[in-house]
Amino acid sequence: MIRVLFADKPENWARYERPLTEAIAATGVEAQIVQPGEIDPAQVDYVVYSPQGPVQDFTAYTGAKAVLNLWAGVERVVGNETLTQPLCRMVDAGLERGMVDYVTGHVLRYHLGIDATLAQQDGVWRHDGGVPPLARDRSVVMLGLGALGKACAEALAGLGFAVTGWSRSPKDIPGITCLNGDDGLAEALSKAEILVSILPDTPETTELLNADTLVQMPKGARIINPGRGTLIDDDALLAALDRGQIGHATLDVFRAEPLPPEHPYWAHPHVTVTPHIAAESRAETASEVIAENIRRGEAGEPFLYLVDRSRGY
Amino acid sequence: MIRVLFADKPENWARYERPLTEAIAATGVEAQIVQPGEIDPAQVDYVVYSPQGPVQDFTAYTGAKAVLNLWAGVERVVGNETLTQPLCRMVDAGLERGMVDYVTGHVLRYHLGIDATLAQQDGVWRHDGGVPPLARDRSVVMLGLGALGKACAEALAGLGFAVTGWSRSPKDIPGITCLNGDDGLAEALSKAEILVSILPDTPETTELLNADTLVQMPKGARIINPGRGTLIDDDALLAALDRGQIGHATLDVFRAEPLPPEHPYWAHPHVTVTPHIAAESRAETASEVIAENIRRGEAGEPFLYLVDRSRGY
Repeated sequence: MIRVLFADKPENWARYERPLTEAIAATGVEAQIVQPGEIDPAQVDYVVYSPQGPVQDFTAYTGAKAVLNLWAGVERVVGNETLTQPLCRMVDAGLERGMVDYVTGHVLRYHLGIDATLAQQDGVWRHDGGVPPLARDRSVVMLGLGALGKACAEALAGLGFAVTGWSRSPKDIPGITCLNGDDGLAEALSKAEILVSILPDTPETTELLNADTLVQMPKGARIINPGRGTLIDDDALLAALDRGQIGHATLDVFRAEPLPPEHPYWAHPHVTVTPHIAAESRAETASEVIAENIRRGEAGEPFLYLVDRSRGY
Repeated sequence: MIRVLFADKPENWARYERPLTEAIAATGVEAQIVQPGEIDPAQVDYVVYSPQGPVQDFTAYTGAKAVLNLWAGVERVVGNETLTQPLCRMVDAGLERGMVDYVTGHVLRYHLGIDATLAQQDGVWRHDGGVPPLARDRSVVMLGLGALGKACAEALAGLGFAVTGWSRSPKDIPGITCLNGDDGLAEALSKAEILVSILPDTPETTELLNADTLVQMPKGARIINPGRGTLIDDDALLAALDRGQIGHATLDVFRAEPLPPEHPYWAHPHVTVTPHIAAESRAETASEVIAENIRRGEAGEPFLYLVDRSRGY
C-alpha cells in the first residue's frame, strides 16, 4: 500500500476524488490517497502537486519517489531548491483539446472578422462584391511547438491555414513550416498575420514579445496568448496597440491573476481578456496521467513527461 | 474555335477575365469568350450562367452544349422551362473552403461563448473553477451532406466535435453519425446543440425549420444558416428566439437580399446577420471547374456536377 498526497487547493479535491481514485485503482497499484496533514510527510510516496496548493517545501518528503504536477507549466516549481525528487509535467489530453478549441476559435474569429460582424448589426448590408481571404491565404504563426503548440499548429493546418511554427530547438512537423533560433524568430514574426504564443515560461522566453520584436510583425497583426503572461512586455504591447502596430490581442494569461480591474488591458478597445480558461486540466484525463506515472514509478519504468530541470521545462 | 458566353453580371467580368481565359487555355480547347449581345445566341457553345446575370431565357441558345452555373445553388434556374440543355452546378474548391471557414468559425464562436466574452470586458474575472465543455462533448448537427455539408462536417469532426449529419438520401461518412429520412430528422434535431443547415433549396426543404421542427431541438440551441434563406420559416424562428427555445441564430442567407434594414433579424439581440458571405465563388477556382467541364464537353466525356433536374439539385 503506497501513499499518494493530493496537494492541490483543498476545494479541488471534490473534482478529483472519484477520477483519481478510479484511475489509480485501474492500474492495479494499491494506494491510499491522503490530504496534507493527515500523515507524516516522510511516509508519502508520491506528491500530486499544484502551484496553488499548500505544499511548497518538499524537504520533509524524504520518501517521495516523484512530484507529479497537475499543471502543464512548471515555472513556479522548477527552481524550488527544496525539490530533489523527479518532477513530472502534466500532459493532459483534455487540457490539450481545450487549448486547441480556444486557439482555433480565436484564430477563426480574427480570420473571419467576427468582432466587426457583431458590432455591425445595424441594418447595413455590407457586401462589396469582394471575397474574404481563405484560411490558406492567412499566415498564422505558432510560438512554441511542445505538446500543446504542436496540437494547435496541426489543428490550424487541418483547417487550411498557412501555419509556421517556431521553437527553440529544431522540429519537423508535417504540414507546418518549422523555424527555430534567432533568425527563425525574425522570419516567423515578419509573416505573423495572427500570432499564437504557447511557449513555456523560461528565462529565454520572458518578454519575448517586446518593443523590438512587436515591431517586426506585420502592421495590424493580431496576437493570441494562452501561454504565459510573462511572454509579453505589457507596456510595449499596450504602446503597439495604441499606435496600430498590433491590431488586436486576445490574452488569457497575465503576470498577476486575477487581472486587476484597473489594469489597462480590460478597458482597451483592441484587447480581449479571458480569465485563464484556455488550458484547464480536466480531472478525468489528468487523473489518468497521474495514475500512469504512479504505475510506472512502482514498476521501475521511466516516468512520462519528466522535467529537464536544466532547461526549465 | 468554340464560343463561351459569360452571362454573369457585367461588373463581375473584371474578376473572371484573366482566370477564366487562362483556365480554358490550359485545357487546350481553343475558345473565344464573348459577352451577351456580341454574337448570335445560336452560335454559343457554352453558357457560363449566374442567377444574377442577363440571360434567363435559353430559347435562342440552340447550339449550346451546356449551361455552367457559377453558383452552387441551382434553385433559380432548375425550373426554367426554356432550359433544355444540360445544367451543371458549381462545386468550387474555394467556395467550399470559404464555407468551411465560416461554419467552423461560427460553431467555435458558439462553443466557446465568444459573444459573452466580448461583452464582459468589464474588469470582472469570471472564473468559477469549473471547466468549459470540450468540442467532443458538444453535439453539432449538419443538415445537408452534399459537397459543402460533407466538407464542413468533416472539418468539425476533425476539431473533435461530436457531429451528426442528416440528408434526404442515406450517406456513409467516416467519423460522422449519418441519419436520413423523417425519423432521422427527428433524431438529429433532438440532439442539435448547434445546428448548421446547408441543404439545397428544393420543395422538400422549404421551411424545414418551422414551428414544429424548432421545438424538437434542445432548449437554447443555436442555429447557423449559410445554406438558403427558404430553409427557415422566419416568423417561427423569431418566435422561438423570443421565448428562448432557440438561443441564438447566425444567418447568412435570406428570402430577400440585401436583407431590408427594417427586418426584425437586424435588431434582434439573439441574431447575427452576415451579408451572404459564407459561400462566395472564387474566380480562380471556379474558372478551373468551368474550364474542365468545357474540356469534357468537347472531348465527349460526362460533365462534372450535372444537375438531376427531377430532384432539383
